[in-house]
Amino acid sequence: MRKMPEDKVHKITSVTCTAPVNIAVIKYWGKRDEDLILPINSSLSVTLDQDQLKTTTTAACSRSFKEDRIWLNGKEEDINQPRLQSCLRELRRLARKRRSDGDSSTDVLSYSHKIHICSVNNFPTAAGLASSAAGYACLVYTLSQLLGVEGELSEVARQGSGSACRSMYGGFVQWRMGEQEDGKDSVAEQVEAESHWQELRVLILVVSAERKPVGSTAGMQTSVETSPLLKHRADSLVPGRMEDMINAIRQCDFAAFGELTMKAIVAYTFDAGPNAVIYTLQQHMAEFLQVVMQFFPPETNGGQFLKGLPVSPVTLSEELKSSIGMDPLPKGIRYIISTKPGPGPRLVDDPSLHLLGPDGLPKKTA
Amino acid sequence: MRKMPEDKVHKITSVTCTAPVNIAVIKYWGKRDEDLILPINSSLSVTLDQDQLKTTTTAACSRSFKEDRIWLNGKEEDINQPRLQSCLRELRRLARKRRSDGDSSTDVLSYSHKIHICSVNNFPTAAGLASSAAGYACLVYTLSQLLGVEGELSEVARQGSGSACRSMYGGFVQWRMGEQEDGKDSVAEQVEAESHWQELRVLILVVSAERKPVGSTAGMQTSVETSPLLKHRADSLVPGRMEDMINAIRQCDFAAFGELTMKAIVAYTFDAGPNAVIYTLQQHMAEFLQVVMQFFPPETNGGQFLKGLPVSPVTLSEELKSSIGMDPLPKGIRYIISTKPGPGPRLVDDPSLHLLGPDGLPKKTA
Repeated sequence: MRKMPEDKVHKITSVTCTAPVNIAVIKYWGKRDEDLILPINSSLSVTLDQDQLKTTTTAACSRSFKEDRIWLNGKEEDINQPRLQSCLRELRRLARKRRSDGDSSTDVLSYSHKIHICSVNNFPTAAGLASSAAGYACLVYTLSQLLGVEGELSEVARQGSGSACRSMYGGFVQWRMGEQEDGKDSVAEQVEAESHWQELRVLILVVSAERKPVGSTAGMQTSVETSPLLKHRADSLVPGRMEDMINAIRQCDFAAFGELTMKAIVAYTFDAGPNAVIYTLQQHMAEFLQVVMQFFPPETNGGQFLKGLPVSPVTLSEELKSSIGMDPLPKGIRYIISTKPGPGPRLVDDPSLHLLGPDGLPKKTA
Repeated sequence: MRKMPEDKVHKITSVTCTAPVNIAVIKYWGKRDEDLILPINSSLSVTLDQDQLKTTTTAACSRSFKEDRIWLNGKEEDINQPRLQSCLRELRRLARKRRSDGDSSTDVLSYSHKIHICSVNNFPTAAGLASSAAGYACLVYTLSQLLGVEGELSEVARQGSGSACRSMYGGFVQWRMGEQEDGKDSVAEQVEAESHWQELRVLILVVSAERKPVGSTAGMQTSVETSPLLKHRADSLVPGRMEDMINAIRQCDFAAFGELTMKAIVAYTFDAGPNAVIYTLQQHMAEFLQVVMQFFPPETNGGQFLKGLPVSPVTLSEELKSSIGMDPLPKGIRYIISTKPGPGPRLVDDPSLHLLGPDGLPKKTA
């Protein structure tokens, strides 16, 4: 038996890549298939510049490695996690297929080697900054480079974390929900490159770098189970908004981009003073008010905090509260006046309400 | 000389009226004529329900009164204030004209009597809740009732406080800026009555009931003098927005109503976590960031508060700061990441940046 030279035994092939965070402006929320991660609606995001936010991943393979291993942000994690396994399995399958199709550009059978993966984020993990999107996009991209796999890879990234498919492209990216059961048509594609809209800027206001108490997967399941509006949004609202958003981006129309991003159920304005005036529709009033009262709780006398038209109390879901995540500010708002559009000036007939008395001077009570 | 009966000598004619507050959704900001109060742009507002917010005014006249007098919120004020005098003079002129035109429905020559006026608000005065609008609308309406004047009165109310002309009508009201030098065509008119959009609700978040440090008149003058964008807004943006807003109201289209009301220079979104992501355009970045840093100041180390793309510091005007009016919240935001759209995943060539060492294990620094 021929003895392998020392350096051949230990040869390690490694590759390092970075991948970006993306922030959706039309959100993905709700799955139609949990295993393949197929969404109930298309979505659209902006890929952020990696100079500020990125995942870096090194993947190495070697005949000498005994098992697949992964380190995330300096700590070894369980490689057997199902979504991680989906990505590894799929990329090895593609590498094998490529080899059997006659492509010999990869000179080692690296898909048969064990792989070590090491990944770090330069931003808070799991605080709702799409760390899993950047993470899985980086994993898939790095493995594809290591294994010599090319072509459409957003479908593989999607199986790690849904929104990861959008981090496979720069600029403005849509994730088409697709229709097929196998998810082959549920892929990301670039709408415009990052160079298209030079003036667009992004600020992230980090209020907490803590790991969020409810993960997105659990949050989505709760929403699918409890919200009758979610299906309506997915089926009736999102298709039109996707089209409008793509047009807004193509035309660099910030007003339309902003409106579609916020798609507000309330509108606010200030009238040359510090008090916010909120316009909303009756059906959103109770929940919005409860959110305001949750985060700006009455300081002393709860009964006097809400003046004007009564609003029925509602219970906020834990998901909604945790997704807002700010600490309550008891001094933020002194009180709230609840009102609606009304008529113009009018005459007061009741003499007891007149402000001047029979002597033509202000009544004592005025 | 015939002795007047006692009750005749002391006869007082009085009338009491209420008038509403209005909150503009397309703002009036800037005058082309300070004396007649003629605006540089048209505006549009929602009149709020008087069940929650109103001014009540009683006006009385009597041959026995020695002078015009006015009490506001329980305190006698100077009746010689020029804008008050404009309204009084104009209404007396209209009453005289009506009398000389042959209308004798007013059986006393009340326009020649001295008038006592007493007015109260049931909401904070001068805190940016349009108290002067409700106040002057109520004054003009009440005096018109006392003096038997009918017809278009928003032009008179406008001479007391510009936006008061809009409080002369209920529901959704536009103030046409007009073109004439005498201001006769600078009047309010109802777009739709309050009954037209039954679902619309309004919340006022009262953060301060203090008198604001800079009044609207001074604020507008500063803006007209210092802002090159104000004229552009008035000339180029407002006409189209007025048309769009009128359509939004006529169609009860809340999405359009909300977008036009906020006309945001920034758009925000949350990505399943507590950290706000803000999209804006480069030209608005510096000022927006300064506003954020003014009200969410860095807790300890200012240098680390803003990460990512540098943004030049700018100085905020006192008007802008006072118009926001909230107290700074040092713990509100931990830090800010400034970034922009960027490219997709990429390969890292520099081996010093690889995360796995030659042994296939994480480097100590990773």
